[in-house]
Amino acid sequence: MVVILKNHADQERVENLTKWLQDQNLRINEVKGEYQTIIGLIGDTSRIDIDLIQSLDIVEDVKRISEPYKCANRNFHPDDTVIDVSGNKIGGGNFQYFAGPCSVESREQIIEIAKSVKASGANILRGGAFKPRTSPYAFQGLRAEGLELLLEAKKETGMPIITEIMDASHISLFEDVDIIQVGARNMQNFELLKELGHVDKPIFLKRGLANTLEELLMSAEYIMAGGNENVILCERGIRTFETATRNTLDLSAVPLLKEKSHLPVVVDPSHASGIARLVEPMAYAAAACGADGLMIEVHNNPSKALCDGPQALTPDQFAKVVKGVENIRKHIQ
Amino acid sequence: MVVILKNHADQERVENLTKWLQDQNLRINEVKGEYQTIIGLIGDTSRIDIDLIQSLDIVEDVKRISEPYKCANRNFHPDDTVIDVSGNKIGGGNFQYFAGPCSVESREQIIEIAKSVKASGANILRGGAFKPRTSPYAFQGLRAEGLELLLEAKKETGMPIITEIMDASHISLFEDVDIIQVGARNMQNFELLKELGHVDKPIFLKRGLANTLEELLMSAEYIMAGGNENVILCERGIRTFETATRNTLDLSAVPLLKEKSHLPVVVDPSHASGIARLVEPMAYAAAACGADGLMIEVHNNPSKALCDGPQALTPDQFAKVVKGVENIRKHIQ
Amino acid sequence: MVVILKNHADQERVENLTKWLQDQNLRINEVKGEYQTIIGLIGDTSRIDIDLIQSLDIVEDVKRISEPYKCANRNFHPDDTVIDVSGNKIGGGNFQYFAGPCSVESREQIIEIAKSVKASGANILRGGAFKPRTSPYAFQGLRAEGLELLLEAKKETGMPIITEIMDASHISLFEDVDIIQVGARNMQNFELLKELGHVDKPIFLKRGLANTLEELLMSAEYIMAGGNENVILCERGIRTFETATRNTLDLSAVPLLKEKSHLPVVVDPSHASGIARLVEPMAYAAAACGADGLMIEVHNNPSKALCDGPQALTPDQFAKVVKGVENIRKHIQ
Amino acid sequence: MVVILKNHADQERVENLTKWLQDQNLRINEVKGEYQTIIGLIGDTSRIDIDLIQSLDIVEDVKRISEPYKCANRNFHPDDTVIDVSGNKIGGGNFQYFAGPCSVESREQIIEIAKSVKASGANILRGGAFKPRTSPYAFQGLRAEGLELLLEAKKETGMPIITEIMDASHISLFEDVDIIQVGARNMQNFELLKELGHVDKPIFLKRGLANTLEELLMSAEYIMAGGNENVILCERGIRTFETATRNTLDLSAVPLLKEKSHLPVVVDPSHASGIARLVEPMAYAAAACGADGLMIEVHNNPSKALCDGPQALTPDQFAKVVKGVENIRKHIQ
Repeated sequence: MVVILKNHADQERVENLTKWLQDQNLRINEVKGEYQTIIGLIGDTSRIDIDLIQSLDIVEDVKRISEPYKCANRNFHPDDTVIDVSGNKIGGGNFQYFAGPCSVESREQIIEIAKSVKASGANILRGGAFKPRTSPYAFQGLRAEGLELLLEAKKETGMPIITEIMDASHISLFEDVDIIQVGARNMQNFELLKELGHVDKPIFLKRGLANTLEELLMSAEYIMAGGNENVILCERGIRTFETATRNTLDLSAVPLLKEKSHLPVVVDPSHASGIARLVEPMAYAAAACGADGLMIEVHNNPSKALCDGPQALTPDQFAKVVKGVENIRKHIQ
Repeated sequence: MVVILKNHADQERVENLTKWLQDQNLRINEVKGEYQTIIGLIGDTSRIDIDLIQSLDIVEDVKRISEPYKCANRNFHPDDTVIDVSGNKIGGGNFQYFAGPCSVESREQIIEIAKSVKASGANILRGGAFKPRTSPYAFQGLRAEGLELLLEAKKETGMPIITEIMDASHISLFEDVDIIQVGARNMQNFELLKELGHVDKPIFLKRGLANTLEELLMSAEYIMAGGNENVILCERGIRTFETATRNTLDLSAVPLLKEKSHLPVVVDPSHASGIARLVEPMAYAAAACGADGLMIEVHNNPSKALCDGPQALTPDQFAKVVKGVENIRKHIQ
Repeated sequence: MVVILKNHADQERVENLTKWLQDQNLRINEVKGEYQTIIGLIGDTSRIDIDLIQSLDIVEDVKRISEPYKCANRNFHPDDTVIDVSGNKIGGGNFQYFAGPCSVESREQIIEIAKSVKASGANILRGGAFKPRTSPYAFQGLRAEGLELLLEAKKETGMPIITEIMDASHISLFEDVDIIQVGARNMQNFELLKELGHVDKPIFLKRGLANTLEELLMSAEYIMAGGNENVILCERGIRTFETATRNTLDLSAVPLLKEKSHLPVVVDPSHASGIARLVEPMAYAAAACGADGLMIEVHNNPSKALCDGPQALTPDQFAKVVKGVENIRKHIQ
Repeated sequence: MVVILKNHADQERVENLTKWLQDQNLRINEVKGEYQTIIGLIGDTSRIDIDLIQSLDIVEDVKRISEPYKCANRNFHPDDTVIDVSGNKIGGGNFQYFAGPCSVESREQIIEIAKSVKASGANILRGGAFKPRTSPYAFQGLRAEGLELLLEAKKETGMPIITEIMDASHISLFEDVDIIQVGARNMQNFELLKELGHVDKPIFLKRGLANTLEELLMSAEYIMAGGNENVILCERGIRTFETATRNTLDLSAVPLLKEKSHLPVVVDPSHASGIARLVEPMAYAAAACGADGLMIEVHNNPSKALCDGPQALTPDQFAKVVKGVENIRKHIQ
């Protein structure tokens, strides 16, 4: 961390600051320039509150040089984290398909889709029970009943299940769920993240629509700081000025996140664009740049899905994507 | 709503669609063009799920023509909503100052600031007890204890208080709080919004960092649809590519929100830029373009604030802003 | 195009408007609703000025339904455009590598790089002579002298060359250049685009940093409307709030542009992120989602490049990328 | 400038770098940390190419601490620049209205509007002769003929005129124009900026749709470095994800630009939102936060303007805005 002092900063106050910093176990190096004095802080600055220092009236600016996250940081944990879900490994060169409908609609629907995506190569069944919808008038999911139906599909097919949580008070309902998903709109629901830090299940953390990669890693850090180190990161598109797609899928996030962190990185091409015919090419692109898995919406009858239908594939289209991805994966290793 | 059909769409399926739409109490008007057929829907389309229609394979595109919100819509409620908080009116030509520290830190601090902002013209005391922080290692607020201290300041000064809620499970702690604030990161925490729809207190709803005005109004609609019609909208800056300010304050939001909705609109110039010396000019600008109030961070010792210090004013600076704003308000009415 | 009239619009003025629209060879279909009247326009609306209609005080809103570009539109030109540059085909299933240094620096440098990228599989040599730089104090390129050196490299190696133009007055200098590049900052330099419409050479048009895909296609339309139909589109990253990369590479643009237009689409992964170690994964991703080519910065000594060095590959790294891309291409066809 | 070296950087190469930096008249201060070595550069770093240093393989990162612009920098030129256009002063506490139609359409039109805006308090007549339009099929302005008509309006009314240039080759046509405008899409047309550095007229430089304030100041620096110090900066809205307005007017830019630079700052509320009824509130806001002037579109018949009509005011509306702004200005001084 580098602290740039104001011109003519009061010397006594500067000494108070440097003393306080030394008390935080930091070594101090002061560089006096013509216009500015710079203080270099050497040591572990990840627990220093940058805003606190910036607020001092003797300080012009503060620049972080090392990352403010520790548990999620590859520098302190060079090996890939590998998460095992009932024998299905995620990360460390293992690749997984999370597939299923946007919303659980009925027993028949979820079991039929589970069987068909399993047959095509998916290992983990996704399905929304609690649905975050922009409009209070739109379908909000079957909620607790949807969770029950997912568990039936799990029994029927043996597939582990992943589904989204929307409120910390629902955690007890997720006891038999295999992976808990945090949606983009809750990426900075810090109370929820803290609670998930005490849960003994992998957390699938989606990047918020306007969140930087550093913020995504800080949200992972919230969960990991609580003791739960099994976090899967998910890129699902960010908000930009472009209107041809619902969001802009930021695939550079894949190699960058894998460089900065040891956590697995999964891509969701269905939600990113909101256009079913872009799922195939973007799934190939995600695999080609090193993703550890794909989350793909599959529906037995996409034209009748109760929500997010335009982005769902049919089981046949999904099977084609899996084959294409496997071909690409052979050739990038 | 206008539905654009695909070229050569199957006629039977088109008839099924139009029949279904008629069952939703909509009148249908079909326009056949050279390349496209357009179906105009006439009637109340606010409860039609646009995604559902878009997902049909006979549909090329759907365009909304009227707004998808009802309770928050000025078309259906032409008069300004005026919210009364212990005699302090917000909206309908009344202007209020919400002032206080970012975080409640101690009894002395909050009471001292409360007295000083009251003396300068603030009517409502703000102060953070539960603090949403990007880093798990940053100060998270005094939480329940902070609420207690705010209530003491309320008793001492008679000022109504506003403070932020971060989780639906905390609602019972907010019983004596006068206005409940929903922060930018929770603007689409739909479970929280639903619960606040059943609360008998005004809700202060901040615009999310990457949310459109329509989404802000849809989130207000969530609260209002639950029965709580006392919602105050707050513009506090959006995320853009500009890095000189923390966020970009979108002041056009003020006249636009007041045109689209009858709800009061307050501006928070402190959080928007994150720079204390921009608070004064942006507060003047907000008042000049028609805001119904200002939320301003004030600290008795800004250079020591535990969070968000760089954006806080001293009580003297705040007093100057109030005088300037009052001068401007006289001249725009 | 759909025109939504204001409530209670003056009937005589509405009739004037519909008469004028009919004079533009459009058929009119009026739909009267409870709150709004909608006029559907049927026929070729690509030459109708949407702003002109929107400006009428009887008009609430205008929504385009078909695209405002004709020459670049795949609807009117279903087959892929294939551009032949001295026997090197671009588009229609053909894939090309445009490689070379950011800036031409010397005769030795450009010839050495040309030879090495040719040996690795590049067919077209890129190199900047006129350099757009944010700072007036940064190296601006060798300009006319740089063009001369590129032409020498062309003679020496037989490779066609592509280089950037910054002003219409320089066109005569580009007589022996094979492909003229328009940079992101000039994508809407309309006077330049018009002049390039009269040039008998392919134009390589980079997407602007904040331009939509529709605007990119409209800029291609400027060139094509002037008679030059050989336009290559290039995605090179857009500006977002993310700061970990210089720009955000929008790969969804590749399948979308190829759906909307018949023109070839090339991706530039070097400029997008500004980070050399992201070039390889993003090049693979671009090939996997259907790009028609890659533009890659290669430098014989990346750590000494006079500009944009951090994003350049060494010749060896480039050779590895070509091999990887060819492997992926075999498996997506 | 602070250079962060890579871990285990080769010592000989580090010494070469520090020697080279010393040759650039910089003092060097090296700070060795546990994980990183930081080199502080003391002296004038504005002419150091940050990309060049960043490209070195021994360098992890480079962070600028002082601004890369000199001529436009208030630190080196503390007093406000005041530009005098035929006795109308801009900057330094003087406020000017630039008003007129988007496009010059006819002799009668431009003279009628000129007279009416002059009567309402405008001092400088604006009008577009060369029009940048997204579509090649949209009206492109009367071009040279439009300039003639503007000059006639100048003769008739005595008002100085401002109009937009789109290409360096047109400069000779602008001989009798009083202020030359550079549009948002040409803010980084560096060849044009260089030419305007040799012109003896004030340049009105609009911020690009996706350009930072630093980039705007760097473009001003291009003009000033050529010898022309009379630059007026203009905020006219930036591109964001919000779709309710055409662009997002960034009013924080006003106090920030005035802090960073001594150049006058004018706001264009007409183009920013593209909605006429937002011009009045946003003009008030701009005046309230310290702008040095307003550029406002006025049309004698807004509903018939050939371009950008929806954002134009009638002369009566403009007169009302001038009165309101003058009231506000009295109260912020």
